[in-house]
Amino acid sequence: MIRSHEAGSLRREHAGQQVVLAGWVARRRDHGGVTFIDLRDASGIAQVVFREEDTAHDLRAEFCVKITGEVRVRPAGNENPELPTGDVEVVASDIEVLSEAAPLPFPIEADVNVNEEVRLKHRYLDIRRDTLARALRVRSQGSFIVHDVLREHGFVNVETPTFTSSTPEGARDFLVPVRLKPGHWYALPQSPQLYKQLLMVAGMERYYQLARCYRDEDFRADRQPEFTQIDIEMSFVEQEDVLKVAEDLVGRLWSEVAGYEIPRPIPRITYADAMSRYGSDKPDLRFGNELVEMTAYFKDTPFRVFQAPYVGAVVMPGGASQTRKELDGWQDWAKARGAKGLAYVLVQEDGTLGGPVAKNLSETEREGLVAEVGASPGDAVFFGAGKPHATQELLGAARLEIGRRCGLIDESAWAFTWVVDAPMFEETDEGGWTAVHHPFTSPKPEWADSFHDKPGEALASAYDIVCNGNEIGGGSIRIHRGEMQQRVFETLGLEREEAETKFGYLLEAFKYGPPPHGGIAFGWDRVVMLLAGRDTIRDVIAFPKAASGYDPLTGAPTPITPEQRKEAGVDARPEAPANPPNEPGHIVRPSEERY
Amino acid sequence: MIRSHEAGSLRREHAGQQVVLAGWVARRRDHGGVTFIDLRDASGIAQVVFREEDTAHDLRAEFCVKITGEVRVRPAGNENPELPTGDVEVVASDIEVLSEAAPLPFPIEADVNVNEEVRLKHRYLDIRRDTLARALRVRSQGSFIVHDVLREHGFVNVETPTFTSSTPEGARDFLVPVRLKPGHWYALPQSPQLYKQLLMVAGMERYYQLARCYRDEDFRADRQPEFTQIDIEMSFVEQEDVLKVAEDLVGRLWSEVAGYEIPRPIPRITYADAMSRYGSDKPDLRFGNELVEMTAYFKDTPFRVFQAPYVGAVVMPGGASQTRKELDGWQDWAKARGAKGLAYVLVQEDGTLGGPVAKNLSETEREGLVAEVGASPGDAVFFGAGKPHATQELLGAARLEIGRRCGLIDESAWAFTWVVDAPMFEETDEGGWTAVHHPFTSPKPEWADSFHDKPGEALASAYDIVCNGNEIGGGSIRIHRGEMQQRVFETLGLEREEAETKFGYLLEAFKYGPPPHGGIAFGWDRVVMLLAGRDTIRDVIAFPKAASGYDPLTGAPTPITPEQRKEAGVDARPEAPANPPNEPGHIVRPSEERY
Repeated sequence: MIRSHEAGSLRREHAGQQVVLAGWVARRRDHGGVTFIDLRDASGIAQVVFREEDTAHDLRAEFCVKITGEVRVRPAGNENPELPTGDVEVVASDIEVLSEAAPLPFPIEADVNVNEEVRLKHRYLDIRRDTLARALRVRSQGSFIVHDVLREHGFVNVETPTFTSSTPEGARDFLVPVRLKPGHWYALPQSPQLYKQLLMVAGMERYYQLARCYRDEDFRADRQPEFTQIDIEMSFVEQEDVLKVAEDLVGRLWSEVAGYEIPRPIPRITYADAMSRYGSDKPDLRFGNELVEMTAYFKDTPFRVFQAPYVGAVVMPGGASQTRKELDGWQDWAKARGAKGLAYVLVQEDGTLGGPVAKNLSETEREGLVAEVGASPGDAVFFGAGKPHATQELLGAARLEIGRRCGLIDESAWAFTWVVDAPMFEETDEGGWTAVHHPFTSPKPEWADSFHDKPGEALASAYDIVCNGNEIGGGSIRIHRGEMQQRVFETLGLEREEAETKFGYLLEAFKYGPPPHGGIAFGWDRVVMLLAGRDTIRDVIAFPKAASGYDPLTGAPTPITPEQRKEAGVDARPEAPANPPNEPGHIVRPSEERY
Repeated sequence: MIRSHEAGSLRREHAGQQVVLAGWVARRRDHGGVTFIDLRDASGIAQVVFREEDTAHDLRAEFCVKITGEVRVRPAGNENPELPTGDVEVVASDIEVLSEAAPLPFPIEADVNVNEEVRLKHRYLDIRRDTLARALRVRSQGSFIVHDVLREHGFVNVETPTFTSSTPEGARDFLVPVRLKPGHWYALPQSPQLYKQLLMVAGMERYYQLARCYRDEDFRADRQPEFTQIDIEMSFVEQEDVLKVAEDLVGRLWSEVAGYEIPRPIPRITYADAMSRYGSDKPDLRFGNELVEMTAYFKDTPFRVFQAPYVGAVVMPGGASQTRKELDGWQDWAKARGAKGLAYVLVQEDGTLGGPVAKNLSETEREGLVAEVGASPGDAVFFGAGKPHATQELLGAARLEIGRRCGLIDESAWAFTWVVDAPMFEETDEGGWTAVHHPFTSPKPEWADSFHDKPGEALASAYDIVCNGNEIGGGSIRIHRGEMQQRVFETLGLEREEAETKFGYLLEAFKYGPPPHGGIAFGWDRVVMLLAGRDTIRDVIAFPKAASGYDPLTGAPTPITPEQRKEAGVDARPEAPANPPNEPGHIVRPSEERY
C-alpha cells in the first residue's frame, strides 16, 4: 500500500507517529500562513496541516494526494468532536499530488441538490459523496448477511443462466440475437423461477441466489430494466418453513444493518383482511386509520351512489377544515386514479354533517354515521362505493394519502407483516378463471380437494412480506402432484396438450419424482433501499439507468453499426420452424416472484 | 419440514427413535419377503427396510417418497462401512409416495457414461447424480469462501450493470434491442473492467464482485457464452498488494475446498522465462522437462532449418523407441498447430543419433548434442526453429504432449505460479505497436520514464496466476496519470482526439483525481472446475450450454415471432447519429481480465 494508515483511523494514541496517508482533498482552509486540509479516504476524514503555505498552494478540491507527516494532538480548543479523528491532525512534511482534478460539475462535500441526470453522468463523483457511498456499503453489508444466513440454513448458492429461451407470451423478455445460430434469439430471464424449480427436481433441496433479473417494462417511477432478487427455493417444506427462513433473513438484515429488532413472529394478515381493512395487498401498518366497511349500514340507503355491492369509508382526521379547493383537489386525485370521484362528509364541530353527500342520506344514516365510522368533530369522511376490490383499493390509496398529509406515519417506524391466503383464481372478463399467482402455486391444504369446485373461493399457499407498505418479497408453495396440476389446468380451461406446449420442459421435469417444494423471492434493490433509508432504488444501485433505460454515463443504449447488425445475425431468417419443441410458457415468470 | 431427519444423518445413537424421512428411491433390493431401499436425499443415503412386501411393491427408481419408521441397528454382519449411516436402517411403518417417476432416460445411481446432450436435456436428473451434485456444492462452498476472504480484506461487493453500451470495436458484444428506444441497443459486458475502474475513481477503494460476463466468441472447447469471474480492484496499491490478496484468496479456496495448503508465497516466473523454459505463458509446473535453448549451440550449423533467430529443443524420455508411425504422428500434430513439422533426433542406446535430422548436423553438433539438451540414451529430442515466440509455443505444446504421453504429470499435484513482467507492447505487422494487455496497464516502475523510448523492451505491471497449466486469473496495475497515459497513446500512435473518441467516459472520469489502482480477475468457472476435480467447466455450471450455445433443456436460442420482433424494435431505425458522444472503446474489455 502506498499509505501507512487510513485517514479515518487516526486517534490520540497515534500522536508522535510518522504516517503516510492517501486520499482526496475534501476541504481546504487557509489561515494566515497555515493551510488546513480535510483529507478524505474510504475510512473517513483526517485534518492535515501545512505550515508552509506554498506547499499546499496548488491543491484544489478532489485532488488525489499522498501526505507524509506526523500525527499530533490538536491544540486545546481546536478539537472537532463530530469527527472520529477530531482530536488529532497530521502535520505534513511532504505532499505528493497523485492526480489532479478538473473543476467539478457539482461539489462533493456540500449537501446540495444536484440534477439527477448530471449526477448519473458523473456517477463516479456522485459515489464519492457520503450519501451514495454509504448506501452502496449498506448494500454490500446486506449481501454478506444474506450469504451468512442462508449458508447457516444449509442453502446452496447456484448460479442460473442469463441466456434462456424466449416465450410465446414473453412480450416483456429482453432478447439477444445469437450470431452462431442466425435468426435465433436468447431471452433474458424475468426471474430464475423455472430454474429454481428445476433445481428442486434435481434434488438440491435448498437453493438460493442473488439473481439478476430483466424485465422490459414501460418505465414507471423507480423501475429499472435490470434488478436483483434474493431467490430462494426449498424442498420438503411447508409454508411455515419458508416463512421461518424468510423471517430469519429479514430479522438479521434489519438487526445488523438498521439496528432494529423485528418483533417475531412477524404478524400475518389475510389477503381478504388486508383489502378490507387497508384497501391494499401491501398495507402500510405504521399507522391505523383503517377503512370501515359500510355496505350493511347503507343497505337501505336512498342515495343511489351508495346502492352498490360494496361501500366503504375512511376518516381524515381534521379534514373538515379543508378549503373548498382542497376538497376539489381530492376529486381530481380520485379521477387521476380512474375513479369517478370521492364522496365525502364533513363532520362539523357541533357534530352535524356538511358537504354535498350528507343531504342525500336518510336521517337515520346521518345520525349514526359519525359513530359508525369512528369519526370525531372536525374530521372528514371519504366514501367509496362500487365493486369491492377496486373500491377498497381507492379507499386504501386515500388512506395512504391521508396518512401522509396528516402526518400519521411515523417515518422512523418499521412495520412488517405477512399477507397470506391470497385467492388462487380470479374471474376473467370472459367468465373463465385465471391464476392469481401462477398455475403451479398450490392451494392451501384445506382447499386441496375442492379448489376446482369453488375456484372463486379457493385460497392459495402464497405469501407476501410487506414492510412499511412496500412488498419486499413473495412466494408460494408449488404444486408437485400431476393429478392436482391437472385439476388446476382444467379450472383454467387448459387442455393437457396446450399445457404441454405452454409449460414444456418444466412439466417434463415434473415427471421424474418432483419433491414437494416452495420458495420466496425478495426484491433486493427495494430491501436495500429501505435498509439504507433512501427514497429511490437508484440510490442503492451503483450505476442505474435514468428514465427510459438511458444511461447518461455510458450513453447506452446506442445505435449499432451495420457491421454489428450483420455480425449478430439480427436479420437472418431462422431455418427451424417458429415453434421449438420445448417451449416454456409464461408460467416460468410468476408475478409474485418478479421484482 | 415434512421430514424429521435427514437420511444421511442417521447414526447408531438414533436407534429406537421414530423418524420421518423424505427423499428419492435410489436402489431397491428384494430378499424373500423383505424389501430394502436406499433412500437418498441431499444429505446422503439411508437403508429402509419393509417387512411387508406389498407396501414397497410399487416403488420404482427415483420415486419421491416419505418414509415413517423406527431406526434400528443393523443385524450383526450387515453393516455397511462405506456408508456413514451404514450401522443402522429404518424399519418402515408407513410409506407415502410424494410423486412418481417415469422410466429414466439414464440411471441416476450407476456410474455409466451418458451422452452429454442427453444429460443436458435432462439436467435436473444429471444433477441428482453424485458427481454433478457434488460439483455444484463445491461451487457454492467456494463462493462462500470468496465472500469471506474479501470481506475480511475490507472489500465492498458492488453489482455492476448487465446493460451497458455497445462499442465500435465490440464485434464480440452480445446485443439487446431496446423497445423503449427503438433502433438502440444495449451491449452485455465482456467484463466489468470499465465499471471497476470507475468505482476506484469513485473512491470505493476495494471492490469485488462475482460478476457474470458475456462474450460472443466462436465456440471452442470448454467455452460458454456466459461465464463468471471474481472481479477485484483496489486503490492506493502496488503490485505486491494485489498479489497478496489474490494469494490469500486462492490459499483459502484450496485449503478449505481441496484440503491443500499452497506453499506461500506462490513462486513467480517472468513472462520471458516462462516462454523460454516452458514455451507457454501459463506453464504447467507439475513436471520439469524444460525446453532447452539451442540458438547459440547451432549458431554455425550447416543445417539450413536451424539457421534461425531461435532454435530450441525438448526431450521426450524414452521417445527413441517410438514407431515410424508414431514419429510421423508428431509431424501431423505439429502441422495441425500450424507448424511445418517437428524436427527430431533419436538417441540410440549406444549414444549415436538416429532420425532424418542427425545427418544434416555437423560432427561437433552431433557429438555435444545429447549432453547439451540433457537427454539420455533411448530418448527422442524434438526441435523447433524460427521466430522465438511461435517456436517456443510449439515446443511448449510438445512438452505438454510429452508430459501426458509419458506420464510425467502427477495428476494429484498442484503447481501454482505467478507469471509476471509481461511486455507492455508488441510490434504490429505494420511496424507500429499494440498494447499486450490494454492501454491503461501501467509500466513497471523502472520503465515509467522510458517505456516510450524502448517500447519493444518495456515491461508491464501485469500478472497472471497459473495453476497446473491453467491461467486462473490475471490483472495489472493501471495508469492513473494523464501524462503517462498520453505517452502510451503516443506509442500506440493514437491522437488525443482519437483516444477521446475511443475511450470516452473513462478518460473523462480520469480527469477528476483518479487514485493509483490495480486489480485482478479470476475465471471462476475454471477455478471451481479445478477445485472440484472436473475436466470441463460444464460440470461446474448448473445449466450450461452445449456447442454453439444451444441449450438442449430449454431449446434456447429460439426463433422469435414477428410480434416479438416488432415489439422489441429490432428493425427500427435510430433517430440519433450513429456515433453517440460518450463512446467507450475496446479498452474497457482488456484481454487479461476476460474469462
